[in-house]
Amino acid sequence: MSDLTSFVERERPRLLRELSDWLRIPSVSTLPEHAGDCRRAAGWIAGRLRTLGFRVESVETERHPILWAEGPAAPPGAPTILCYGHYDVQPPDPLDAWITPPFEPTVRDGRLFGRGTADDKGQVFCVVAALEGLKAATGRLPLNVRLLIEGEEEVGSKGLTAFLSAQPDRTIADAVLVTDVHMVAPGFPSVDTVLRGIVHAEIHVRTLKSDLHSGLYGGAAPNAIETLSHLLTRLKGPDGKIKIAGIYDRVKRPSAKELKAWKRLPIKEKGFRAEAGAKALTGERRYGFLERIWARPTLEIHGIVGGFVGAGAKTVIPAEATAKLSIRLVPDQRAGEVARQLGKAVKRAAPKYADVAVTILSASDPVQTGLDAWPFAALDRAFKEVWKRGVSPIRSGGSIPIVPLLQQRGAPVLLTGIGLPDDGLHGPNEKLNLEQLWRGIVLFGRFFELMASGGRS
Amino acid sequence: MSDLTSFVERERPRLLRELSDWLRIPSVSTLPEHAGDCRRAAGWIAGRLRTLGFRVESVETERHPILWAEGPAAPPGAPTILCYGHYDVQPPDPLDAWITPPFEPTVRDGRLFGRGTADDKGQVFCVVAALEGLKAATGRLPLNVRLLIEGEEEVGSKGLTAFLSAQPDRTIADAVLVTDVHMVAPGFPSVDTVLRGIVHAEIHVRTLKSDLHSGLYGGAAPNAIETLSHLLTRLKGPDGKIKIAGIYDRVKRPSAKELKAWKRLPIKEKGFRAEAGAKALTGERRYGFLERIWARPTLEIHGIVGGFVGAGAKTVIPAEATAKLSIRLVPDQRAGEVARQLGKAVKRAAPKYADVAVTILSASDPVQTGLDAWPFAALDRAFKEVWKRGVSPIRSGGSIPIVPLLQQRGAPVLLTGIGLPDDGLHGPNEKLNLEQLWRGIVLFGRFFELMASGGRS
Repeated sequence: MSDLTSFVERERPRLLRELSDWLRIPSVSTLPEHAGDCRRAAGWIAGRLRTLGFRVESVETERHPILWAEGPAAPPGAPTILCYGHYDVQPPDPLDAWITPPFEPTVRDGRLFGRGTADDKGQVFCVVAALEGLKAATGRLPLNVRLLIEGEEEVGSKGLTAFLSAQPDRTIADAVLVTDVHMVAPGFPSVDTVLRGIVHAEIHVRTLKSDLHSGLYGGAAPNAIETLSHLLTRLKGPDGKIKIAGIYDRVKRPSAKELKAWKRLPIKEKGFRAEAGAKALTGERRYGFLERIWARPTLEIHGIVGGFVGAGAKTVIPAEATAKLSIRLVPDQRAGEVARQLGKAVKRAAPKYADVAVTILSASDPVQTGLDAWPFAALDRAFKEVWKRGVSPIRSGGSIPIVPLLQQRGAPVLLTGIGLPDDGLHGPNEKLNLEQLWRGIVLFGRFFELMASGGRS
Repeated sequence: MSDLTSFVERERPRLLRELSDWLRIPSVSTLPEHAGDCRRAAGWIAGRLRTLGFRVESVETERHPILWAEGPAAPPGAPTILCYGHYDVQPPDPLDAWITPPFEPTVRDGRLFGRGTADDKGQVFCVVAALEGLKAATGRLPLNVRLLIEGEEEVGSKGLTAFLSAQPDRTIADAVLVTDVHMVAPGFPSVDTVLRGIVHAEIHVRTLKSDLHSGLYGGAAPNAIETLSHLLTRLKGPDGKIKIAGIYDRVKRPSAKELKAWKRLPIKEKGFRAEAGAKALTGERRYGFLERIWARPTLEIHGIVGGFVGAGAKTVIPAEATAKLSIRLVPDQRAGEVARQLGKAVKRAAPKYADVAVTILSASDPVQTGLDAWPFAALDRAFKEVWKRGVSPIRSGGSIPIVPLLQQRGAPVLLTGIGLPDDGLHGPNEKLNLEQLWRGIVLFGRFFELMASGGRS
């Protein structure tokens, strides 16, 4: 461990410079105009891995390439770890809410600000730096390392889904490390045992051939925005309850033991509310806030647009309006079933005068992992050594659509990370605490060492 | 009349070329980037009037200049007409719905397509061409003509309101001709006896400091779009009823006689629906469609925006959302009172966790004109001669905020026009039927002649 620590001490400035170079590439996977940047971001980390002696394969998809990297051969009998992460990032809007530009990484108060710092380039870089640290200390890697780094995590992982469905044996490993989640609180390492699934959809309403003058037709011609607003309120009440028939049928409540354990976590409603920047929390009041975000299905509208939205006045009755929304799923809901339920509910709520279309953008099931496999013990031990505290089993309200496929050959999936809850993922001013990054490099290096020795130190 | 007819026959190609030149100037008053174009459009028509011997005054406002033009002195004892119109136009979006570009006027099937063809450049040009025709025929104008052409009609006429409030005597005239309305149906000249007023507003909702990740906060953090949708549905029901306390208190139903006269108009629900491009009409079912658009207050949402609206997926909980809307007013509602009622209703409907702001963008009272003054008889007679049918008194659902001030010195206001109901005002593919334009030039020339002779021919 002391070798790893001194590696980090020594190499900090270079590592920060390198990570910043990677973050400067705006690899926004959802925007077609950034397809070239996604490719550049993939190339950047591929080059970084090759200098560590990795053999890197770039697998083409319909959109952005997947990287498959295999480390140099480990000593005979050494275990195999598969590390998953992604090089694509969320769009940076609203741009004017950023204090420094999203793709010009900037350090303020020991924190590195920029899109992708925490989700997920910073965490992928942390693992790669840990491998470099191990190699620097001993001249080799103590275990077989594979890395799977995709560029479509933020848009549904379509390419990787096809790849792993066609080549399931790529997931044969002693453990899969997924560093696309964060610690439950500063100083509290954690492992996610459940990830919510997601059904992402777009609803499009058309009520007229084209926009009309509201003076000449107002009061008689159907308004697309009004229709969409009414429709959205019929999908979810102000009480947070989703009004889609059948949606709660398969929802399993957490055990009393699990709920009790959550109460002991250093994450309280007041702090959570403050961190969210809200005057009050909303949602289903009969459930605690952690159960609401971790163990309840939720429906959120992500965007809406229709009619005239420029500055000033334009008195039209809009012909069209569109909303983007998603439903997060919990065990034992099934994404396909929920997508069908949503389609039916929209159809039922749509008035006859309107053409209403629902497009499912992506759908993935919720995920459950166990805690019994031996690599968990290695991870727990590594955290105890480096962070002075073992891992707390928690859940995540987020979704990583690829995890079910990473589990398909039975490897235990370890969902952990060195990010913090206030990192601002998907929003403006996303950041990564540099202290977490430096310590994370030691942590993952130590975890790899402990795994290599079969959990024994 | 034959002189006017032959003037039009002879000059058509030039007139069409000139009008097209004017239409090519994108004088969109609401968009700051078009301020220069507004000034160019004002200059264009000012130049046109000067060649006819008019003295033109350009009055500066905070935004776009007002033109005041006085014709050459008429014979002693001749009456005075004040003609009102505007050179500004609505924004052209949605751009991709136009068959030919909005600011490249194009003739198809005898119709001139382009933004401003009907509202209102084409109709102003029609009046100016009529004056030119009269002058060409007799070498002089038979009555005193003043023109008041503003550039802020589509944004609330703030500058002209200040100008006419400060200088009410500018409205002293025997009649005010307002050519910013259209005929009730092809072949059916009409005069509007009521214009609806309008309260134009913007509602802004903020629920969070900044956008959040819907996986990490979904189900507990307040969503601005969801809040705005619920709020909008609390302002107006799907039955078309406005749910703002007190809003119907001053609404006067049209007389039985007026309602009966509307039944005789060649404008039927089926045709109106088809022209609107809707599968069905909506709104308050207990009132006929003409009463709904002409004699009922209505609330329409013009635009909405919030969250992520780009292509693809971005799973945020939006912190902000905005809607633009307007309420149209009928006699005897008062704009100031309705603006206050709206503010109160939004405040009452807004949840405590949200910061909700209502901004009133403009407010104007509904207008009633009489039909008894002698210039109406001159107009009726001119239409009978040129169109073979006199004017039908109707109402308009639209609003011309300046009309109350044009009436302030007691001049009768004649609201008439040569546009047609399907001209597509404020929407894409706005057009003007050229046959209406050519006949309109003869019509207005003849009306001026009849007015000059005191209604006697």
